[in-house]
Amino acid sequence: MSDAPHPMIQSEFDLIQTYFAALGPHREDVDLGVGDDCALLRPPPNRLLAQTQDTLAEGVHFAVGADPEALGHKALAVNLSDLAAMGAEPAWFSLGLTLPQADTAWVAAFAHGMAVLARAHGVRLVGGDTTRGPRSISIHAQGFVAAGRELRRSRARPGDLVYVSGTLGDAALGLMQQQGEWDGGAQHAALAERLHRPEPRVLLGRRLGGVAHAAIDLSDGLAADLGHICTASGVGARFELGRLPLSAAGRAYLAVTGDWMPFIAGGDDYELCFTLDPALEREAAAICRAAGCVCRHVGEVVAGDGVHCIAPDGAELSLARGGYEHFSG
Amino acid sequence: MSDAPHPMIQSEFDLIQTYFAALGPHREDVDLGVGDDCALLRPPPNRLLAQTQDTLAEGVHFAVGADPEALGHKALAVNLSDLAAMGAEPAWFSLGLTLPQADTAWVAAFAHGMAVLARAHGVRLVGGDTTRGPRSISIHAQGFVAAGRELRRSRARPGDLVYVSGTLGDAALGLMQQQGEWDGGAQHAALAERLHRPEPRVLLGRRLGGVAHAAIDLSDGLAADLGHICTASGVGARFELGRLPLSAAGRAYLAVTGDWMPFIAGGDDYELCFTLDPALEREAAAICRAAGCVCRHVGEVVAGDGVHCIAPDGAELSLARGGYEHFSG
Repeated sequence: MSDAPHPMIQSEFDLIQTYFAALGPHREDVDLGVGDDCALLRPPPNRLLAQTQDTLAEGVHFAVGADPEALGHKALAVNLSDLAAMGAEPAWFSLGLTLPQADTAWVAAFAHGMAVLARAHGVRLVGGDTTRGPRSISIHAQGFVAAGRELRRSRARPGDLVYVSGTLGDAALGLMQQQGEWDGGAQHAALAERLHRPEPRVLLGRRLGGVAHAAIDLSDGLAADLGHICTASGVGARFELGRLPLSAAGRAYLAVTGDWMPFIAGGDDYELCFTLDPALEREAAAICRAAGCVCRHVGEVVAGDGVHCIAPDGAELSLARGGYEHFSG
Repeated sequence: MSDAPHPMIQSEFDLIQTYFAALGPHREDVDLGVGDDCALLRPPPNRLLAQTQDTLAEGVHFAVGADPEALGHKALAVNLSDLAAMGAEPAWFSLGLTLPQADTAWVAAFAHGMAVLARAHGVRLVGGDTTRGPRSISIHAQGFVAAGRELRRSRARPGDLVYVSGTLGDAALGLMQQQGEWDGGAQHAALAERLHRPEPRVLLGRRLGGVAHAAIDLSDGLAADLGHICTASGVGARFELGRLPLSAAGRAYLAVTGDWMPFIAGGDDYELCFTLDPALEREAAAICRAAGCVCRHVGEVVAGDGVHCIAPDGAELSLARGGYEHFSG
């Protein structure tokens, strides 16, 4: 137009320009980032391009009024966790952001939470769009992995050991605490942190490439996610309750309630579950130490199918609920 | 679990497996598609990876009760249109689908509409997720373009001719018709088709690569989108109302109302707007014919800034509204 632009008309583009035009570190492989019809990127030769897309919707994955800074972190973290589970090195991401209104303070805090995590992992925002509608965040993230070093779900073999990183169930307890169903007491802040600010196991995943047989990130709970490995690999697996790694908060909850469900079926932990040839156990231990996390042997891959949960007394438990499932409610 | 899976627990995965596991043609460059933490892809060497992400939200981009088959088409089409505007050859896409409930008939029709367009353009669905929430569709699409043949917004030069493909304003008239504000009469079906089933100008975009200077797809209306080219290129542009390509439906609307706004500021046409060295006009005409579409010279790129709209009497019009803008309502 020959007139000065209408201030309202510029608002969406202002938002994008101001907060998202240069989010994350500069990367030489980004030929053209935010601001054209497409981004133009230069994937490295002789590497597989690994990519994932995860959506977080208000009222489903996060509560109305959730802290935008934590949400910016988590929306990117859950996607980096998928790259970690594939053994990939994160590179770029794209953001589809749907908001009920153009709330500058909200966007600034959201972008800040996202930018801090993006810089920590060297990933650059290269595109996406901003839309008016019920609040939701759909991120597409990409990374690279050398062929042969990718961690597929489908390569678990009978005899493999089943490992998990970190501790289980803390995000589920954090959610119960938020909903007033549990009081974390002295561990209140720690549980909230695990729920709202998961740390994707990127370094661990990359170093396990070519060592572990199969891997998945724990978004739906150990039973369900280990079940995905079993289905993809055509095997079964067993894990022992007594071996599950629990935080201080988890041990306190278990002591009071006797309830194992948060540790077996609680989602949102974003730890890695991987399977390993027993001959490589020492090598894996060194990798976990180098990646700065504790990994625990919790079970074994077996011939057959299904995931079998073994109680401390050796009995096999039957579980009616396998984990969080979007359309089961 | 050792038990048979709970039928409700399998529902999301059933949905994905059944309708989205093999959507689009087989491609040799897809090493691993839907079903793991990430897709694994093999981008071709020596090409730029072009990618875009566009979200359609219910109540904003489509009405409650919209035909799911047309929606499956349109959600992919608007993303392929961005690849077209970059001169890229479409290859892969990822789908973030948010639905209020797992409605099998809806998903089947949606997937069918998407699959027909995907096959027509040789693009394969390689990943994404399905989430419960207010209905929305966020697609990330990727393609390839040789370096030097990409169509950036930023390369328009004073003296270039401004071209548009097809006809303008039909989608806007289709929306007015749907909202009861206009009766398309004999052109009713044609207008609805333009609104609900846009055909991305993929072949045209690819062939214009290395020939046109700058390009954009018309999603926000000619004035706004040509304005994006001007801003990115540091130039101005003028277009003449009398040169705008109108369909029979558009001419009928103009004759009755005298209103040029749908043609200048109506969104959702997904035609291409491109700028061209006048010396290449004959070559461009041959490209348009070969791509099966009519392209019309509507104006020129000029030094300065802003988009200037020239009336049939030669007067410059002032326009208060530049096009559809998500946060301007």
